[in-house]
Order: sequence, then structure tokens, then C-alpha cells
Amino acid sequence: MNKKLGEGTVVLGSPVYIRGMGTAVGSTEGKGPLGEYFDIVAPDATWGEKSFEKAEKKLFTEAVKQAASDAKLSLAEIDLLVGGDLLNQIISAGYTARDLSLRFLGLYGACSSMTESLAIGSMLIDGGFAENLVCATSSHFATAERQFRFPLELGTPKPPTGQDTVTGAGATVLSTKKSNLCITAATIGRVVDFGIPDANNMGAAMAPAATETIITHLEQRGASPKDFDAIITGDLGIFGSEMLMDLAGKCGVMLEEVHRDCGKLIYAGMKNKRCGASGCGCCASVLNGYFLKRMEKGEYRRLLVVATGALMSPTSVQQGETIPCIAHAVEIERRDD
Amino acid sequence: MNKKLGEGTVVLGSPVYIRGMGTAVGSTEGKGPLGEYFDIVAPDATWGEKSFEKAEKKLFTEAVKQAASDAKLSLAEIDLLVGGDLLNQIISAGYTARDLSLRFLGLYGACSSMTESLAIGSMLIDGGFAENLVCATSSHFATAERQFRFPLELGTPKPPTGQDTVTGAGATVLSTKKSNLCITAATIGRVVDFGIPDANNMGAAMAPAATETIITHLEQRGASPKDFDAIITGDLGIFGSEMLMDLAGKCGVMLEEVHRDCGKLIYAGMKNKRCGASGCGCCASVLNGYFLKRMEKGEYRRLLVVATGALMSPTSVQQGETIPCIAHAVEIERRDD
Repeated sequence: MNKKLGEGTVVLGSPVYIRGMGTAVGSTEGKGPLGEYFDIVAPDATWGEKSFEKAEKKLFTEAVKQAASDAKLSLAEIDLLVGGDLLNQIISAGYTARDLSLRFLGLYGACSSMTESLAIGSMLIDGGFAENLVCATSSHFATAERQFRFPLELGTPKPPTGQDTVTGAGATVLSTKKSNLCITAATIGRVVDFGIPDANNMGAAMAPAATETIITHLEQRGASPKDFDAIITGDLGIFGSEMLMDLAGKCGVMLEEVHRDCGKLIYAGMKNKRCGASGCGCCASVLNGYFLKRMEKGEYRRLLVVATGALMSPTSVQQGETIPCIAHAVEIERRDD
Repeated sequence: MNKKLGEGTVVLGSPVYIRGMGTAVGSTEGKGPLGEYFDIVAPDATWGEKSFEKAEKKLFTEAVKQAASDAKLSLAEIDLLVGGDLLNQIISAGYTARDLSLRFLGLYGACSSMTESLAIGSMLIDGGFAENLVCATSSHFATAERQFRFPLELGTPKPPTGQDTVTGAGATVLSTKKSNLCITAATIGRVVDFGIPDANNMGAAMAPAATETIITHLEQRGASPKDFDAIITGDLGIFGSEMLMDLAGKCGVMLEEVHRDCGKLIYAGMKNKRCGASGCGCCASVLNGYFLKRMEKGEYRRLLVVATGALMSPTSVQQGETIPCIAHAVEIERRDD
């Protein structure tokens, strides 16, 4: 019954079970190396909708419906949606909650949103407040580019550290009902800012936050990296992942052997995707599509999932602010008893 | 020990105590009828900062510091900040969490954010995950106008149903440590959309969500309006409040005698503020400044606080979407035992 947030980490009183998963991604992600793991692949960037934003909402909605179906639950049996997305006023999540008539706690943690929602969701279930709830996030390349950087029509080139936002959504149904996979602990992040002002170098900005959260979690759990089959970051990308190895190494924590990054995996080997992926749909789709499915098959016993988010806005960057970042971690175990 | 979100309402296992409150508002709000109740009144719209956005962050930060001080806690003794604001990417909350070095769960519920944060915060404490945490939200007239409507420099007139966003922030420290005021129950809202497309008529858009949440809460608690000294909405304003009376009345729930609206109170009798106030700083400052202070003095025994939020974005409205709304409720009691 060890729970406590004072030092950042909570150990749940009882495991909170993962009852269902759902993913819906864009066509590029479908053609990538993880394509076969995703439940739904949209044929193109608009998926029959009139705007990229409406297409993103459709990805969010379909991922939630898929997760409910995988959990063998009707939407009416789901107590609550806990989620958010990258768009201003988290419209993908909000309109999905409206269309599916779900009670809704909206959150914003930028690309950390998937683990933020899993952390909040598992605490609410462990606290006795819900039996089944769904955690979900999404992002979309075209909506994120025009909101955070430049409209695609301008054809603005990206620097080598630029990452591409994933078009995709992922959803997890958490439950009191026993299954093989469960969340056992979580760490809520602190906001860390190393003074990086470049919105095209998110990996570097987010790596310190990931380091802080991973080291906090390991310390509080009395664990070392080798106690995990994988320590998975959300979307540090290639450059940010190198920075994480470096920073953690300087703190005496060697992550090389166990570290995996969703942003590296989803576009691995693909042309023009040199620095990897970003967006809160990245961790959402790779976690629910790739890692949890492989864990169900028995390929992993214990994972630490650490999504990282950059909390700046275009306005704050224009006003000279640097990029504050945060990372939240959830620990997921396979239990066969 | 009756907890359950299935029907929307949770009754906390033990009361969660309100240990401290803090408010910081703009000069207009300071000159209004509730001026004397606010802890800090900024001298003007920028408060020595270089932008309205930075001034809003300062309001947020000062309200949090004031609440911690009122609770007789150092910031290091606060386990977590649960909060958000109206700005894209909730930068007021995010940069405050960075500057005060707080662990942070960012949320977005538009103008429902204050009660969303109190609901999540009280469930986390009741679940045993934190001892002391702070819930806070803010808004700013000038930042909200240029983000959601038109830059002030354009001088665009408002229609009679237009409400003015409050410049202000409010923060509440929730705790396991006993005090006179406590949260005993909460209702998480469902997203309700009556098809209103006009971003200058938020009160009308939000009234149905308030009705749904109030009626759900009363039913689940087996209570009637007269069991509360006041049922307080966040920022329906004058027109939206009338709609609430109407809609609730049609459902057989008479709210006339107990209903109060923060958006009506904060600008009552002031020139050019005909339809009242809005913004998540409205409920935050009026609840923490006016209602909870009067409750501490023994003037109320039991309150139901229902902040309402409109979850559209300028982009979704431009793309022809209507305004989906949500309302979350928290029940606050005074206990002298």
C-alpha cells in the first residue's frame, strides 16, 4: 500500500489492469516498419474529412472505439475518457468526448500526454473512483505543422534536428478487471528547462526532463535499468535519444542496453525521416500498437514508459521564452498468475 | 466509502481539506464589487511585464504562492500542481510549474478548469497519492481576446451577449490535514452540445452542460437545491444564468433561490460589463476570494460549485463546428467538529 507523490513516484495499492488497446494511424505510419502492428491505417491525410483537424479527431475517435471493442466493453460501460492532444484547446479529444457521449477529463501535457493520462487514469482506478476508463491521445503531421511551425503549403525545409509529428492516435482501457498486463507505479514529472529556445530541436529540449523522471523513478523503486526489459521514451528522436544516454550516463545510469524510443522506431529506415518522429500520437500508437501487443505475447515482462512533452507555445517562443519540458513515467508489468 | 464515477458522481472516502487559498486579479476586477476580497490586485494589464501573456503567468504564479503561504506551507512541501489556463498549450500554468519547480499535471477544461482541477486534486488526495497539492487556473482579458476573438487594437465591438474574460487567477491548496472547509463529493461532466455556433454567446452554449451536471449531482446525492446554501456556476453570465434557470426548471429543478454566478458577481453594477464575465480566472478568483473566505467566516455551510467550459477552438468554429461544453462540480462543506 505504498503510495506517495512527495518524491514524485507513486506505487499503486493494487495493480491497475490494461484491458484493451486501440490504434489508428496515417498512411505514412502504416507503410513504416511498425505498420503491421496498428489496428487501423487511414488511406490518406484527410480520411474523407474536410480538414486535417477533422481527420485527427477521426483518428482519436476510432482509436477509442477500437480500444473499447478490444476490451469487450460498450462505450456506455466506460466511466470516463482521460485524454488530450496537441491541438489548441485539445479539440480532437473534446469533440471525441462529445461524439461518444463520454464523461471527460481533458488534459494537456504536449507529447507527454499519453503517460500523463495513464498516470491519472491508474490513480483514479486505484483510488476506487472508476471501474473502466479510457486514456487516449492523438497528433497529426499537417495540423501540428501549421499550428506550431509553418503551413505545409509554404514548403519550409526542416533543419537536421527537426522531427516529424506522427499522424496517429492510441487508446488504452484501464480497468479493475484482471488481465495479463497491469500498471504498478507511476512518476509525475517536474518541469525542467535547460534553456533551449529552438522549436526545431525538441529532442534536445526534452532529454533533460526524461533523464530527471527516469532517474527519479529508478531511485524511488530501488531499481536499476537492467530490471526492465525496456525503458521507452516517447519521442526524443535520434538526437534527443543520444542526449538522454549522455545525461543519464553522467548521472551514473547506463541506459544504452534497455532504451527504446518510439520516435526512432516508428520511422526507422524511412526516407526523409532522419531525426525521427514526435507528437503525442507517437507514444500513443507505438505503445498501444507495438509494445503492449508484444507484451501480450510474452515478449516483455516489465516496461518503463516515459513520454516527454515540450510545454512552450508559438506565442511564448516568439516572446523570447525557452522551452520548458516534462516527462511522466508509468511502469507496466506482465503478470501470469 | 461510496465512490463511483459510473454515474458521474464520486463521494470521497474521507473529506479532502481546503488548507489555503490565494487570488491575484487585474485592476478592473480590483475596482469591482468584490475588490476587497482579493489578495493581490495588479496595478494594470501588464504588471511590469513585457506582454499580456507574461502578466497572466505572473497572476498565476502569485496566486499559487499566496495559497501556499495561506496554507503555511513552503513550495517544497507541495507535492504537485494540478492546473491549466485558457492560453494555447496552457503556458501560464506550465511556466509557473517551471518557475516554482513543482511537479505538474496540466489540464485543459476551458472555463471549467478550476473545478476540474479541484475534482482531480481531491480524488488524488483521497486515493492516498498526495498530502498537499495546489489546484490553480488563470485567465487574462487581453490574452484571451486576441487568442479567441480579435486583438484589442482593432476595437471590435461586442454583441450584447458577449462576456468579458476576467483578468485573474485563483489557487486552492488541498490537503489531508484537517481544517474547517472540505470537499466531500464531485461530479465529472459529460460533453454537451446544443448546436450553438456563436463564440460571443458562451453563456447560452454552456448552460445545458451546467444543467446536466447540477441535476446529475443532485440526483446522485439524493439532494435538492435547498440543501445547499448556494449553487455557484463559473461564468454563465447574465444571459446564460437565465437559460440555466429555464432549462433546470423544465427538468423540475428550481434553482432561482440558491443560484449564484461568479461571472455575474465579479462585475455587478459596473459600466460596460452588461452580460458579465467569463474565463477560468473568473471562477478561480471568485471562489477562492469571495465564497471560500465567507465560508471560513461561517456564512455558508454547504456549497456546490459548478464551473462550465466551452471546448471549441477558433479553428473548429471556423471549420463550421458548434460549441461543445462541459461542467464539473465539487461539493464543499464547512465542518466545525
